[in-house]
Amino acid sequence: MDRMQFHLNGFRTGDPAISEPAEGQQARAERPGSEVDVLIVGCGPAGLTLATQMAAFPDITTAIVEQKAGPLQLGQADGIACRSVEMYEALGFSEQILKEAYWVNETTFWKPDDANREHIVRSGRIQDVEDGLSEFPHVILNQARVHDFLLEAMRRGSSRLEPYYSRRLLDLTVDVSIAEDSDAHPVTAKLERIDPGHEGEIETVRARYVVGTDGARSTVRGSIGRSLSGDSANQAWGVMDVLVVTDFPDIRFKSAIYSNEGNVLIIPREGGYLVRLYIELDKLKESERVSERNITIERLIAAAQRIFRPYAFDVKEVAWWSVYEIGQRLCDKFDDVPEAEVGRRRPRVFIAGDACHTHSPKAGQGMNVSIADAFNLGWKLAAVLRGTSSPGLLHSYSDERQTIAKELIEFDRAFAKLISTPPKDPANPDAGGIDPAEFQQAFVQAGRFTAGMAVHYGPSLITAEPTHQHLARGFELGTRFHSAPVIRYWDAKRVHLGHTIKADGRWRLLAFAGADDPGSSRSRLGRLCEFLAESPDSPIRKYTSPDTDIDAVIDVRAIVQRDHRELAAELIPPLLVPQKGRYGLRDYEKLFCTELNGEADIFEQRGIDRADGCIVVVRPDQFVANILPLDGTSELAAFFDRFMIVSSSSVMSVPA
Amino acid sequence: MDRMQFHLNGFRTGDPAISEPAEGQQARAERPGSEVDVLIVGCGPAGLTLATQMAAFPDITTAIVEQKAGPLQLGQADGIACRSVEMYEALGFSEQILKEAYWVNETTFWKPDDANREHIVRSGRIQDVEDGLSEFPHVILNQARVHDFLLEAMRRGSSRLEPYYSRRLLDLTVDVSIAEDSDAHPVTAKLERIDPGHEGEIETVRARYVVGTDGARSTVRGSIGRSLSGDSANQAWGVMDVLVVTDFPDIRFKSAIYSNEGNVLIIPREGGYLVRLYIELDKLKESERVSERNITIERLIAAAQRIFRPYAFDVKEVAWWSVYEIGQRLCDKFDDVPEAEVGRRRPRVFIAGDACHTHSPKAGQGMNVSIADAFNLGWKLAAVLRGTSSPGLLHSYSDERQTIAKELIEFDRAFAKLISTPPKDPANPDAGGIDPAEFQQAFVQAGRFTAGMAVHYGPSLITAEPTHQHLARGFELGTRFHSAPVIRYWDAKRVHLGHTIKADGRWRLLAFAGADDPGSSRSRLGRLCEFLAESPDSPIRKYTSPDTDIDAVIDVRAIVQRDHRELAAELIPPLLVPQKGRYGLRDYEKLFCTELNGEADIFEQRGIDRADGCIVVVRPDQFVANILPLDGTSELAAFFDRFMIVSSSSVMSVPA
Repeated sequence: MDRMQFHLNGFRTGDPAISEPAEGQQARAERPGSEVDVLIVGCGPAGLTLATQMAAFPDITTAIVEQKAGPLQLGQADGIACRSVEMYEALGFSEQILKEAYWVNETTFWKPDDANREHIVRSGRIQDVEDGLSEFPHVILNQARVHDFLLEAMRRGSSRLEPYYSRRLLDLTVDVSIAEDSDAHPVTAKLERIDPGHEGEIETVRARYVVGTDGARSTVRGSIGRSLSGDSANQAWGVMDVLVVTDFPDIRFKSAIYSNEGNVLIIPREGGYLVRLYIELDKLKESERVSERNITIERLIAAAQRIFRPYAFDVKEVAWWSVYEIGQRLCDKFDDVPEAEVGRRRPRVFIAGDACHTHSPKAGQGMNVSIADAFNLGWKLAAVLRGTSSPGLLHSYSDERQTIAKELIEFDRAFAKLISTPPKDPANPDAGGIDPAEFQQAFVQAGRFTAGMAVHYGPSLITAEPTHQHLARGFELGTRFHSAPVIRYWDAKRVHLGHTIKADGRWRLLAFAGADDPGSSRSRLGRLCEFLAESPDSPIRKYTSPDTDIDAVIDVRAIVQRDHRELAAELIPPLLVPQKGRYGLRDYEKLFCTELNGEADIFEQRGIDRADGCIVVVRPDQFVANILPLDGTSELAAFFDRFMIVSSSSVMSVPA
Repeated sequence: MDRMQFHLNGFRTGDPAISEPAEGQQARAERPGSEVDVLIVGCGPAGLTLATQMAAFPDITTAIVEQKAGPLQLGQADGIACRSVEMYEALGFSEQILKEAYWVNETTFWKPDDANREHIVRSGRIQDVEDGLSEFPHVILNQARVHDFLLEAMRRGSSRLEPYYSRRLLDLTVDVSIAEDSDAHPVTAKLERIDPGHEGEIETVRARYVVGTDGARSTVRGSIGRSLSGDSANQAWGVMDVLVVTDFPDIRFKSAIYSNEGNVLIIPREGGYLVRLYIELDKLKESERVSERNITIERLIAAAQRIFRPYAFDVKEVAWWSVYEIGQRLCDKFDDVPEAEVGRRRPRVFIAGDACHTHSPKAGQGMNVSIADAFNLGWKLAAVLRGTSSPGLLHSYSDERQTIAKELIEFDRAFAKLISTPPKDPANPDAGGIDPAEFQQAFVQAGRFTAGMAVHYGPSLITAEPTHQHLARGFELGTRFHSAPVIRYWDAKRVHLGHTIKADGRWRLLAFAGADDPGSSRSRLGRLCEFLAESPDSPIRKYTSPDTDIDAVIDVRAIVQRDHRELAAELIPPLLVPQKGRYGLRDYEKLFCTELNGEADIFEQRGIDRADGCIVVVRPDQFVANILPLDGTSELAAFFDRFMIVSSSSVMSVPA
């Protein structure tokens, strides 16, 4: 289903963002069911994102539990990278984020004034996100609000998910003897209630899969015998959210201040008044913890006041503050299957977010990487549970995300070190330090990482080799599908092609027509559609149950190099106006044109071969999985045959 | 308050769209209070829009009652003009409308095929809204959803409004002897409960003001001795919302079909599948009502099938249908004060929406004009109730809106006639009818009316003569402020200047700086700010209580012809970075720049004098009230002196 399509199976009233409930949906039970498909432990950003994703599948039972007594009120994370906003678009609430958040438009840099090194002066300013990197901005919004949106989206999903709070995971065991039985619930979780009146009650939940999103001290991680490892940089930092009166002119810009008194990173916050400051504190001694220092908020404020000189910095209210030491730690594998057993059994327990990697806050990675973990895992769990993909798919989660986490931690370590380096004094160059211009340059280079766009999955079961990359150079294999605007043929609406890719577990096959007449049945686009609709080798024919809509598993859309006013409707292949639902209503949202009043069109923006066109296969998590010639039908079939399985009669029906 | 500013008076958590409750806000009572400031009768679009507007004022008590038992489930109106989306932006939920609605991008036209006049062929297509008319599109969304958004916005407002359902207005009286006592509650309404268990209970509510938004059969209108008058065109139409399978290629375009079998107007609906059809039926006899014809849905469908030939038109489900005759009716005055008494007393009872004007549905006027009525009235009621404006202001509601309603009804009559005229047959030109090309041309000309942009209030107490119109030709006096993008100085965010004008009852003074250095205190902008902040003649000094924020009554913002990177913060007049709230926090959202990466800037787009700049005074309902030179301080003071009154100590404090 497209999120803003409704009425397909009959007219309905009310809020269309609330999905129709799963059949037989009951009022939420007092306690999680004793058998569930997926148990998620922990209501941080990773857990809630995963739960929101799973809530879209009415045929999958999911429970999410949390040790705390209720939703987060005050979050620590705040930066939402462009890529994360893209994921929230796919989950259905990007517009709420964009409305409430602070938008990071520019970053400014400050350094000691050469004339008076006790004072700071502005040394430069840069655009925060390079042009065209994403259609969404980099924004700042309190983590608690992001949780609110996710909780609301979960509640609105088909399976109407809500967390069970006040549950502490006591232990988790996997019955390896039945782990390969696809009907089994081999994971047993024991939960202890800690809410008043129920203290000590034990709930036992047997699950097909368990995901630990239970933070840096993850119990799930411990239960599968894994641990975080890495070093601590022995550098203490303070962070505070404050309401402040200041004449510092860049208090509403993200700013990096290098001063002789230490460094500060300013992150303006939503709502127009609040600001977050990361303040560099002392180097810690070997194995010393910041908590041993008894650092007070007064000390943080005093440090800020010294750094901001000559500007006044009068703190009126402290909304939240904390001190921490920088540390990057990583788990070597993100599931329960030892490397040696990968070929023999599927993973049953996964860890995501802080449970498997921790970052310093300043590169803005923590929450964003956690969300991306969940976005990678959700569709894979759904595909295996719904019987459309082979269980081997599940190994790709750790393969892909552990590699990315490692890259990001390396980046984060370098970035954190950069921020902690003192500025070079031109009067005393031998004393060391970094040139402010060099610092600014490093910030610019870090842009793709901080925007969440540096993720590149290597070739695997689900990501093809870049054999045909030249057909669409701007859709790099293994990177996220980079959206661009197109005109919808049937109603001339300008839409972002990437926003048709919702988090609904479906694969996308985007057919970019070549120069031959797309309105002719003998065009390459026409022949591709014919193959997909009619050939027994077609992945659509093979992997879509005849009881469901033709786009339930693989969603085909086409983009033609034409003005929508000049393409005759009669000649459009039927696959591109499929009849769906109980009435056989036509879906008019599959075909797009390129005229954009003189702007560069998607073929130009993404380097698509105008003569030959191509097929771009996009994973359910929006990553480019394959690029093929329009007539590459056997390669296309072979690609899906690698991981898809013919749907058996026992599989629950796919929702419309 | 700006809708997306928060934390001004201290950090708060939770949904910022939910205003802080009014002081002493109680749980909603079982019944409306016996004394209220404003009683609104009727929960249609006008009533709910007015209530949403009133909910923003914590110091005003409002009750809204409705005869039906609960919110609308299925609405009749559907078209939302660009101007209405602008008002919803000011009320805080345009993004929800834009997300859910169908966007009207093009309108297509069909006529009889000259080769076979039993068949239709496409004769043309036009862009639905001319470029640059509004930053918002023309959209289609079920009225019930618009009500949902308004109800939600009311609930979130400071005074947490919710309607009292199942209340029938029995009668309404105004005690004229005390109507000029500003402390009095001279209007007495008797309401009868009609909900099960409470039938027949009478609730008496005394109000300072009553607004009848109770539809075409308005009881409020009757109680003030007014009536609708106008003719009926004796043309029956059918309307149906259907799920249909058809090969008609423009089923997702707004389309006007002229056929030998009658005319159809297609309005595609939200959600991708539903479509509304307006179908021309027979001419009625003199004084015949359509209800006497016993027209069935089968007959409507059969008519559509004949009109659509050669295309199939297979209706799968009828979501809603109705038949009606076209009629345009109008009330001669929209309040309770007879023309002869206007100088002697203020209005106490108003009517708005269908209670004072009815339209045919096809020009898409009904709901949009109703909303605009409410938007015109709301701030005026608030200003008089809060003691910032003289009661004479209230006469301008009927003056302005009755004139507009009359214009729109004339337009609507011409438009409805046009749609009912048969097409000219080239083989038989003497038989009469309209040339399809002429029809299309008339549609284009109607664009400004249907977009809601034809509204032009004449000079009055609150709209100045166009003496200085040449300083900003694109901000025509008496028309709505036409927004354009600008860059916010303090955080480089690109924003729409018009979106800073929220429905919060405040006047706006937009100072467009001339060519002289805006950063200098001797610039015209600098001197204007100095006058406003310090002169005893300044309307800000005169009309703003010292206990409230400096922008609580008149909100000053400035736009400079500069790149934000080239204007020194130190030189910005303090009035443009005002200190507000309990902490004296600086408001960083008052100053804007114009660099837009090569796009035409607001000075160019709106014809603002680049050398001299100007002041644009904007009413709380977003209409341009005055244009003055930057040094026109005495004219400015005189303008506000016409209708503002010095706030007395008895006035309740204005919320931040």
